Amino acid sequence: SSVLGLLFSHLKECLTHIRTQLDNVVDFWLKHSHDTVHGGFFTCLGKDGHVYDEMKYVWLQGRQVWMYCRLYRTMGRFCKPEILEAAKTGGEFLRKNARVLGSSNPWKCAFCLTRDGRAVKVQRSIFSECFYIMAMDELSRVTDDKDLQLEAEQMMEQIIYWVRVDSSGLGRPSLPGDVPTNSMAVPMMLLCLVQQLTEGREEAVTQKYKELGNWCVEQILQHIQRGGTAILENVSVNGEELPGCQGRLQNPGHALEAGWFLLQYSAMWGDDNLQKTAINKFVELPYQNGWDKKHGGLFYFLDVDHHCPTQLEWNMKLWWPHCEALIAFLMAYSQTKKPELLERFYQIYEYTFKHFPDNDSGEWYGYLTQEGKVALDFKGGPFKGFFHVPRSLFMCECILTDLLAKHN
Amino acid sequence: SSVLGLLFSHLKECLTHIRTQLDNVVDFWLKHSHDTVHGGFFTCLGKDGHVYDEMKYVWLQGRQVWMYCRLYRTMGRFCKPEILEAAKTGGEFLRKNARVLGSSNPWKCAFCLTRDGRAVKVQRSIFSECFYIMAMDELSRVTDDKDLQLEAEQMMEQIIYWVRVDSSGLGRPSLPGDVPTNSMAVPMMLLCLVQQLTEGREEAVTQKYKELGNWCVEQILQHIQRGGTAILENVSVNGEELPGCQGRLQNPGHALEAGWFLLQYSAMWGDDNLQKTAINKFVELPYQNGWDKKHGGLFYFLDVDHHCPTQLEWNMKLWWPHCEALIAFLMAYSQTKKPELLERFYQIYEYTFKHFPDNDSGEWYGYLTQEGKVALDFKGGPFKGFFHVPRSLFMCECILTDLLAKHN
Repeated sequence: SSVLGLLFSHLKECLTHIRTQLDNVVDFWLKHSHDTVHGGFFTCLGKDGHVYDEMKYVWLQGRQVWMYCRLYRTMGRFCKPEILEAAKTGGEFLRKNARVLGSSNPWKCAFCLTRDGRAVKVQRSIFSECFYIMAMDELSRVTDDKDLQLEAEQMMEQIIYWVRVDSSGLGRPSLPGDVPTNSMAVPMMLLCLVQQLTEGREEAVTQKYKELGNWCVEQILQHIQRGGTAILENVSVNGEELPGCQGRLQNPGHALEAGWFLLQYSAMWGDDNLQKTAINKFVELPYQNGWDKKHGGLFYFLDVDHHCPTQLEWNMKLWWPHCEALIAFLMAYSQTKKPELLERFYQIYEYTFKHFPDNDSGEWYGYLTQEGKVALDFKGGPFKGFFHVPRSLFMCECILTDLLAKHN
Repeated sequence: SSVLGLLFSHLKECLTHIRTQLDNVVDFWLKHSHDTVHGGFFTCLGKDGHVYDEMKYVWLQGRQVWMYCRLYRTMGRFCKPEILEAAKTGGEFLRKNARVLGSSNPWKCAFCLTRDGRAVKVQRSIFSECFYIMAMDELSRVTDDKDLQLEAEQMMEQIIYWVRVDSSGLGRPSLPGDVPTNSMAVPMMLLCLVQQLTEGREEAVTQKYKELGNWCVEQILQHIQRGGTAILENVSVNGEELPGCQGRLQNPGHALEAGWFLLQYSAMWGDDNLQKTAINKFVELPYQNGWDKKHGGLFYFLDVDHHCPTQLEWNMKLWWPHCEALIAFLMAYSQTKKPELLERFYQIYEYTFKHFPDNDSGEWYGYLTQEGKVALDFKGGPFKGFFHVPRSLFMCECILTDLLAKHN
């Protein structure tokens, strides 16, 4: 029908635009972020790409290695020596410097490093280690280096131990008022790692992580609260609502990211129930609860009882929730072909591409006011690297290409 | 002359308004913040005063005890049993619960507690302990309880040891890339405590803390950088600029607060040079560098090289820098009688009272957008308690009363 024709011609436009954006973003980081002296990447890049701070954040180093490798390995036009070389030197920088020497645990990684790789700060959480694993596993896939894969799996064992057996090695003192919490970031991150470590690998590896994957899903589903009307960011370890601000916190971008992780997992195992829950609770709900009806865009934080959140940036529009929303709605549509999901995708697409990309100097702004004005004009910072933007563009390009190929 | 007459009639208006505001703010906290079950204070108070979170932050508990005692002790109309009683039960709550049982150091205090006093979180810094000292010392003055004074002085010894001898007891791991830093908060806080512990006490006490006071001043003055054109928040321990964002950071409100601490200290010791430096560098400069020429108000953070700060809230207008600016300019004027300082006071006064007070439900908003719109509508939160607003109103009322008395 002509309606279907129109729909697909719009999808084609989206694909062309997204492809151009991805090329632009990759070019920006290739040009501005490489430290040719010490290896690794500068991530504090100003509006025009200049380095305004030389600190090297381990999360962002790991993510950039991962992203370069994923592009190199799976998208023909990025299979270039320059990208492989950058990924390798980034990987070497991490292997040489990320782990904190002389710490009580040989797997503990720093949070940030000086330009030449000396540890500046260590977080008492698992995320530096998680992004280290993502980098090493993906790098092992392009270099066929089994040592890297082994190292990734060994660090994974340590993380599983910290999360599921005993977290005291992370260095947090045990305090009588500090109730153990299921914060969504942890099972999400582990589920992401399960998918990273098992994708395309032999059955034995898949089986090894199967129980963990199921546990992660169960932990994520505990965040469906208030009779199924909200996703709350922090719940008790028994899946009950926690008191106060912490318990009432909603992070719509995070819920949407969990949504597409669950969708990928449900597709892998052919789990239709999980697919349904993922779409209804982790894709549609966070959009319904998190979209700013007045100014457009997704809020960063919200309180489920409509109190004002205590996070000063609660009403800002950040780039990454929009990146995650694009993936979530497009993936949900591609799995179900429900037109209302595609409509939402278009709506988010429109807001995102109208507000975030900098058509003059390249890359995307990361932080807008509630009204959509640029509030911080840098392209990279302590928490914005070469990750959410290219991952979203990459994923959307893959899904769109697939959708259009099936149509023809 | 009639110009002088006009000037003083405006000062009288300010005094009347500030007195009313102080009464209003004290009433708000007396009415909404007291926990009559467990003692101590709720500080997470919504727009209309409702408690939206029961967490008890030790900084804010200590500050509220201090402020109640200071008002009770020095301002006749607040010398009421209700205020003394609240301060005492707050003090008891702190003495019973603030110190972390079973920690390696008996003086280490928690950062926040459950409603019934169980430790939730411990910071690896000195500030919970500092506000504990302020509370105990001021409480000892109204109750004449020498044990409290002794406890304050003992904790002070521990803090001095952490700051000047060995900080390893605070629990931060020593890392090769983590350069020791002189961050302005530390000498400011210690100078404030020196003034707290010595004010009106016998000569022996004053002498005991004299060397420390001078050291604090010296450390604060190291933050004058860029050939005297900027106050930078973090410098090296030798007083040199640090690299990167951390080194270029300006926090105008903090510099202004340091300004009036230095002015008080210079008055106490009759140090005219210090007075001049305090006014030129810590009062006028932060105003010049920190005032938003377009929308009015003081920025929260700025980069001295005009890069965009990485703090998401950099361009927001917070209540407390304006509170500190009011004190700093009024004190500078009262010490020098230079009319340009009074003009600045009026300018800040106008912005502050136009934007921050909530004339419907009482107290002040804490967090505005750059344009001056309320961004977070609560009256108390994890970092906003009964402190900056009443301290500023209290100090301004004292200074104005004094100025007008001398005029008559």
